[in-house]
Amino acid sequence: MTAAATLPEADAALGVEERLVALAAISDQPGALTRLYLGPAHRRATEQVAAWMRQAGMEARLDSVGNVVGRYAASSAGAPTLILGSHIDTVRNAGRFDGNLGVVAAIEVVRRLHAAKRRLAFAIEVVAFGDEEGVRFASALGGSRALAGRFDPALLEERDAEGVSRRAALAAFGCDPDRIAAEARDPAKVLGYVELHIEQGPVLEREGLAVAVVTAINGANRGRVTVTGESGHAGTVPMALRRDALAASAEMMLAVERLGRSEADLVATVGRLEIDHAAPNTVPGQVSFTLDVRAPDDAVRARAVAAIRAALEAIAATRGVSVHLDIGYEAPAALCDGGLQQRLAAAMARLGLPERRMPSGAGHDAMAFAGHIPFAMLFVRCRGGISHNPAEYAAPEDIETAMRVLADFIDHYDI
Amino acid sequence: MTAAATLPEADAALGVEERLVALAAISDQPGALTRLYLGPAHRRATEQVAAWMRQAGMEARLDSVGNVVGRYAASSAGAPTLILGSHIDTVRNAGRFDGNLGVVAAIEVVRRLHAAKRRLAFAIEVVAFGDEEGVRFASALGGSRALAGRFDPALLEERDAEGVSRRAALAAFGCDPDRIAAEARDPAKVLGYVELHIEQGPVLEREGLAVAVVTAINGANRGRVTVTGESGHAGTVPMALRRDALAASAEMMLAVERLGRSEADLVATVGRLEIDHAAPNTVPGQVSFTLDVRAPDDAVRARAVAAIRAALEAIAATRGVSVHLDIGYEAPAALCDGGLQQRLAAAMARLGLPERRMPSGAGHDAMAFAGHIPFAMLFVRCRGGISHNPAEYAAPEDIETAMRVLADFIDHYDI
Repeated sequence: MTAAATLPEADAALGVEERLVALAAISDQPGALTRLYLGPAHRRATEQVAAWMRQAGMEARLDSVGNVVGRYAASSAGAPTLILGSHIDTVRNAGRFDGNLGVVAAIEVVRRLHAAKRRLAFAIEVVAFGDEEGVRFASALGGSRALAGRFDPALLEERDAEGVSRRAALAAFGCDPDRIAAEARDPAKVLGYVELHIEQGPVLEREGLAVAVVTAINGANRGRVTVTGESGHAGTVPMALRRDALAASAEMMLAVERLGRSEADLVATVGRLEIDHAAPNTVPGQVSFTLDVRAPDDAVRARAVAAIRAALEAIAATRGVSVHLDIGYEAPAALCDGGLQQRLAAAMARLGLPERRMPSGAGHDAMAFAGHIPFAMLFVRCRGGISHNPAEYAAPEDIETAMRVLADFIDHYDI
Repeated sequence: MTAAATLPEADAALGVEERLVALAAISDQPGALTRLYLGPAHRRATEQVAAWMRQAGMEARLDSVGNVVGRYAASSAGAPTLILGSHIDTVRNAGRFDGNLGVVAAIEVVRRLHAAKRRLAFAIEVVAFGDEEGVRFASALGGSRALAGRFDPALLEERDAEGVSRRAALAAFGCDPDRIAAEARDPAKVLGYVELHIEQGPVLEREGLAVAVVTAINGANRGRVTVTGESGHAGTVPMALRRDALAASAEMMLAVERLGRSEADLVATVGRLEIDHAAPNTVPGQVSFTLDVRAPDDAVRARAVAAIRAALEAIAATRGVSVHLDIGYEAPAALCDGGLQQRLAAAMARLGLPERRMPSGAGHDAMAFAGHIPFAMLFVRCRGGISHNPAEYAAPEDIETAMRVLADFIDHYDI
């Protein structure tokens, strides 16, 4: 018998939706959801989340990096811990599901265990991370890095737009920044970290599926391409004598798109483009544009970046322009644990859901655990693939399905 | 015997260069050449030009629209008039050759006639137009339109950036705006208008030629293309599910380039491009870009615009995006007079210069005469095709060659 099956379905789903609406009302900005790390709304949200954790049978505390940690004790002392969670900080003008859903859903799953008076052979911790989006300070994932034992104390000196340091903001929040290192979890005592999150993309909706198991959080390169040709008068320079940096860039962008399509799960994007001294009657002499390449497989991504570089250089040579590709950022892929993926997939199978595994194109707290604590993620379908936007939406029935998968996963987790 | 051959070459060339340097020093802006219509520098320039005209044997006057008109009388009364000239207003931070060269060279050609004590069967007027660039007021070519009898009195109410009307600026300059209509020349008494001008493009330099006869001032369309796809997260939207407005625009820009290359003397340019809500990690949802199409043949240009429209729509349909092409501006080509072209070409042949005819991609005062007074232009090679820039340069020997062509053209003009 699964844990979820012990509760009335409709009430449970309604409860999650109501809590998401209530949480979304806690904002730094009237009329929109903006909840920055260690800000006033974050403060109130931690109190609300801690209260819900306690109602769900957990002990709740604010840790020294601003995470809310709720603990549902195991049936015996000394048992290992399974960590569930997501984040409650948001981007500016956010939707109410990104991050918050994973926290509220994890609390609900524990609440159902508690309501059924069940204790497991392992403890469950639900963590509401506070610093996933990286909006207030330059770096991100501060909360999850602390649990992974990878928080760099130098980050305490980062300052927000108003000049307030991370250290000062933590102290004002009631956290002791000098105790962050002590938040590190002993991997020997943690079964893993499992995060439920909206997909933030259109794949599940397109395929008519409610949930999927995440295989990896994609590795990424970000860079800048600069193309230098020769500017000229749009009326007086014949086509054959032009070295048009924008036309060259157009050909290069099509190469980026073609190579981005060359392997499954690879994506390549040009999102910004600027023309130097642009005017309608001037042949562009210099253009720069961004490049974003992501893949769950680092070798695939490296091959793609190399192929893009070669294509750009070939196009530049043919057109008599110069090109410079500066890859300023690289993050390796963070692979989800195979065993945890298999357990989630087995839960889906038991609930009669078709198996679907997919990579995550966006970053998540889970990636902070890469190489330290096994982690997995469960994606929930969201409408139109829209995220980081007030129009963000996941249907109550999909959320219920995801919670049942998580509950069944927990229920069948034998140690 | 040509007129030019009656004078020492070196002195003549030096004289023109010295006069161009002296004229360039007359500016509204310290350290740069900026001479706006009816401004203080324009006032001083009209006085300098009038003085040179008088030294060259002409009667000089400021007309009611701010042009300086120098008249070198014919050998007999009632003879027709050949008009030479160009403009002495400039863009901001201009070069010293655009416009000014045509005025100074025409004065020099007359000065040589005068020095040789020659009178011709027709009068020569040298006109220094004041409003070619259209920098101060919204419209351009006010001076040449007045001579063509096409000056629209409504333009007197146009205001500059400081709110000064054209009417008030003319009055302050000592011009009577109510007499502008009287500046119209009687086509029956004018042989034609001939303008010497730097090419403002790279063709002559590339071909190793000093001068060319202009066939037409290109007709032009200018418009705006808007491409609407669907924005998305650069990490989470798979390539196959994208409707990327920038990738679609890239394909469209290559089509514009390809079609611009499809016929001789046709040019098509995308000079500006903007991405709506651009971000490196966002698949662009909407892009707009400019389109500039020019050709000496209106039918060629119309076909090109139609082909571009069809190509854009086909690309949009294939990619599942929408496209809108708004052609906001159209100007027909202004054809240079065949007879005058032939006379200029014959002069070049007599001087041992290879025949070269080419269209003008930029606009000129000459186009104001289209359909009213026959006109022709002689282009002079300029370095790097650079214009509207302090680096603008034409070599003294090329200027001398052009003046000899103009002098020989005049010398052999039998009526």
